[in-house]
Amino acid sequence: MTLDPPAGIRTITDPRDMAGYLQGVRGECAQSPFVVMPTTTKEVADCVRHLAAHNMPFVAQSANTGLVGASVPDATGHQAVLSLSKLRDVFDLDLANRSLRVSAGFRLSEINARLSQHGLFFPIDLGSDPMIGGMVATNTGGGRFVRYGDVRRNVLGLTVVLKSSDAEILHLGSAVRKNNTGPDWKQNYIGTSGWFGVVTQAIINLEPVVQEQAAAIVVPSNDAAMLRLLQHLETRVGSLLSAFEFMSRAAMSHAFAHAPALSNPFAGGDIPQTAVLVELSRATTGAPWDTPLDEVLQSVLAEAWELQGAPIQDALFGRPEEIWALRHALSEGVKSAGPLIAFDLGFTRDKVIAFRGAMAPRLAAKFPHIEICDFGHLGDGGLHFNLVKTDGPNTPAFETELRDFVVAAAVQEFGGSYSAEHGIGPKNIKYFRQFTEMSPQTRRAQALKFQE
Amino acid sequence: MTLDPPAGIRTITDPRDMAGYLQGVRGECAQSPFVVMPTTTKEVADCVRHLAAHNMPFVAQSANTGLVGASVPDATGHQAVLSLSKLRDVFDLDLANRSLRVSAGFRLSEINARLSQHGLFFPIDLGSDPMIGGMVATNTGGGRFVRYGDVRRNVLGLTVVLKSSDAEILHLGSAVRKNNTGPDWKQNYIGTSGWFGVVTQAIINLEPVVQEQAAAIVVPSNDAAMLRLLQHLETRVGSLLSAFEFMSRAAMSHAFAHAPALSNPFAGGDIPQTAVLVELSRATTGAPWDTPLDEVLQSVLAEAWELQGAPIQDALFGRPEEIWALRHALSEGVKSAGPLIAFDLGFTRDKVIAFRGAMAPRLAAKFPHIEICDFGHLGDGGLHFNLVKTDGPNTPAFETELRDFVVAAAVQEFGGSYSAEHGIGPKNIKYFRQFTEMSPQTRRAQALKFQE
Repeated sequence: MTLDPPAGIRTITDPRDMAGYLQGVRGECAQSPFVVMPTTTKEVADCVRHLAAHNMPFVAQSANTGLVGASVPDATGHQAVLSLSKLRDVFDLDLANRSLRVSAGFRLSEINARLSQHGLFFPIDLGSDPMIGGMVATNTGGGRFVRYGDVRRNVLGLTVVLKSSDAEILHLGSAVRKNNTGPDWKQNYIGTSGWFGVVTQAIINLEPVVQEQAAAIVVPSNDAAMLRLLQHLETRVGSLLSAFEFMSRAAMSHAFAHAPALSNPFAGGDIPQTAVLVELSRATTGAPWDTPLDEVLQSVLAEAWELQGAPIQDALFGRPEEIWALRHALSEGVKSAGPLIAFDLGFTRDKVIAFRGAMAPRLAAKFPHIEICDFGHLGDGGLHFNLVKTDGPNTPAFETELRDFVVAAAVQEFGGSYSAEHGIGPKNIKYFRQFTEMSPQTRRAQALKFQE
Repeated sequence: MTLDPPAGIRTITDPRDMAGYLQGVRGECAQSPFVVMPTTTKEVADCVRHLAAHNMPFVAQSANTGLVGASVPDATGHQAVLSLSKLRDVFDLDLANRSLRVSAGFRLSEINARLSQHGLFFPIDLGSDPMIGGMVATNTGGGRFVRYGDVRRNVLGLTVVLKSSDAEILHLGSAVRKNNTGPDWKQNYIGTSGWFGVVTQAIINLEPVVQEQAAAIVVPSNDAAMLRLLQHLETRVGSLLSAFEFMSRAAMSHAFAHAPALSNPFAGGDIPQTAVLVELSRATTGAPWDTPLDEVLQSVLAEAWELQGAPIQDALFGRPEEIWALRHALSEGVKSAGPLIAFDLGFTRDKVIAFRGAMAPRLAAKFPHIEICDFGHLGDGGLHFNLVKTDGPNTPAFETELRDFVVAAAVQEFGGSYSAEHGIGPKNIKYFRQFTEMSPQTRRAQALKFQE
């Protein structure tokens, strides 16, 4: 491709400088003629118009932290990168409304650092540090979904540049929370990986920042007991519950092996079959009517102990950052254990447990050199189903067979989703075509109606 | 119209029997050739196909409780009514998942009555008792929006019959909460009054039912102080806050006049300029770590008393049902005061106060025989801006002039919405065309992208 980049907009063409924009987190690696870095919505539109006029495909990218390969160019080497990382012209805080209008190129950590002095935060909790554009494009969920929901729930408005030859700029929604004046068009640009347009700004809902937390690691009597514990907590402490994360023995074992400094909290160092991280939190601390959260957590877990069938075997308390250290060490631990085939699945809540129960013997029978090292968010049905190959190399054919087997069971048998919170991307496009995509007639029937 | 109704599906043609389906809540009155009452999604599709084949327009209706005339036929007399009130074939509760698949013809009250034995409820709190189909079609919000959000936040999946000649049945979304596998098409059928399709089933999120409540009527020092009180409560009691409703003196005065049995809680019976109903609630009661909510409410309001500038002048406590009696009496009270021109506006939170402040002198100058009897939900920016004509009859020309004046100020000057939670309908279609509707080119640009 010899197309010139759009004039007057910062562009990188040196392969060495482009490297960080071409490599994906999961090892994807591609080539691109250039990376263009607009700084305003208008410049984004100029880029899109220029690229469209020359029939040049592009991929929009913000922090390039995505896990499904959707933020890096494809293998053709012909796609430009439209980087939103310099799109940082707007940061408009409305304190009274608890809302923020922010450009796509701000990182989550930076947004929350700026908000902390005002006692507010954007309540999406992630292991990575994406920019707001990518968060909208993938509709990230994360570890506090059970309390705050996903990005979709917290987006009030969007500015979007359509991927058309006109590169029309749309302002969809606003900071007004109650607005029922026709189709909520912005929804189509949330969680759709930039297919329909490039998100350049978002107006997001903010929440009072967390001031007090308490956390424990709970050993359930068995896997089904996790669900009873969750229901108990939802009824007894309601929205104080901010995380309910289960961890398999295999995942925890690898975390301890990989991070020797990580302290093993279990009696005798004996890692249980499953453990659950429970976190309570609230936006205030020291109010005279509030019992300290560590006392609340101890009491509500003591109650669970007494429930019929005793869903709890043990509960280990500690400072929240200690408790979370184990949870945060899981991903690296699992990655260090061998070739990883990772799935980001979503189910209704009881099906998480049913799926795990059914897959263990099936995988053992059909794929003998696979170890299940899973963990996830039971409160919202999210399951990070990580499989480690324990013997021999991972080959593309083996991985494809394994992926097809797991996804088919998750979707067809357990009614699950093959992408709970990571999006589609090259990694999942095959399953999108197989399980999700509407027929052209149906899409037409839907689309026609929009034009009435 | 001499078209026969679809064969084999219950139909009403006698004008006397049709009356309840043809009259709207706000006095709209129309004619229709027949009311057809399918009982399954398949029958709905049969009806839509039959009507489409004969080019017969129709209006979908569930409980016919809408306030903008969208649920009754238009003035032509040629529109059929597709009543969903007998569509009651599905009520599938998933307790573990806190979700319910339910047909469009179930009323909110009936859903919650059935759920109460399981300790769950659908957390949309309304003054009327709509059916689930209409709730989705209008994306109702209501009095507990500040705690639970609107219908959109609580819809996980939809079954929709497209308004096409094929009347295709779409199943959009599911009970799975974390699912990011492409466009969330169901969003286009929420809050769009059935324009794009008829909602026949919804899968909805349920919450643990409220077990304990406390409420008070607070007299703020001035209107701006309401916002400071709200921010204080959000920070100090977080998601215990379930309602924050302000009421104007005029609205309260008419409520007391219209309902003599209603007790006046104010010192000396002296109705203040503005009062705020504050409610706290939670899903559990009597937990040893919880301070009773009436004590929490007294303490947090006592704190507000001490804040700089003292945003509170008085706080009146009582049983929640007594406290709510005043709020619930406002609508009827205002209606009894004279010809009513009602607006359902939405703003960012500080603009609610700014708009009220600006409009009082302007309306007094331009429309001398108008009394502002407003109330609303400050927590989410909703304002029921009710105007009563105090002298002389209301004429269509007068009402149009007044409506145009108020809506133009709300939208153009204060960035507000002319329909916060009631939808479009004949009442707002003029403002939709003026302020909301996208150009045909833009709609095409959006729509084309959907077909890629």
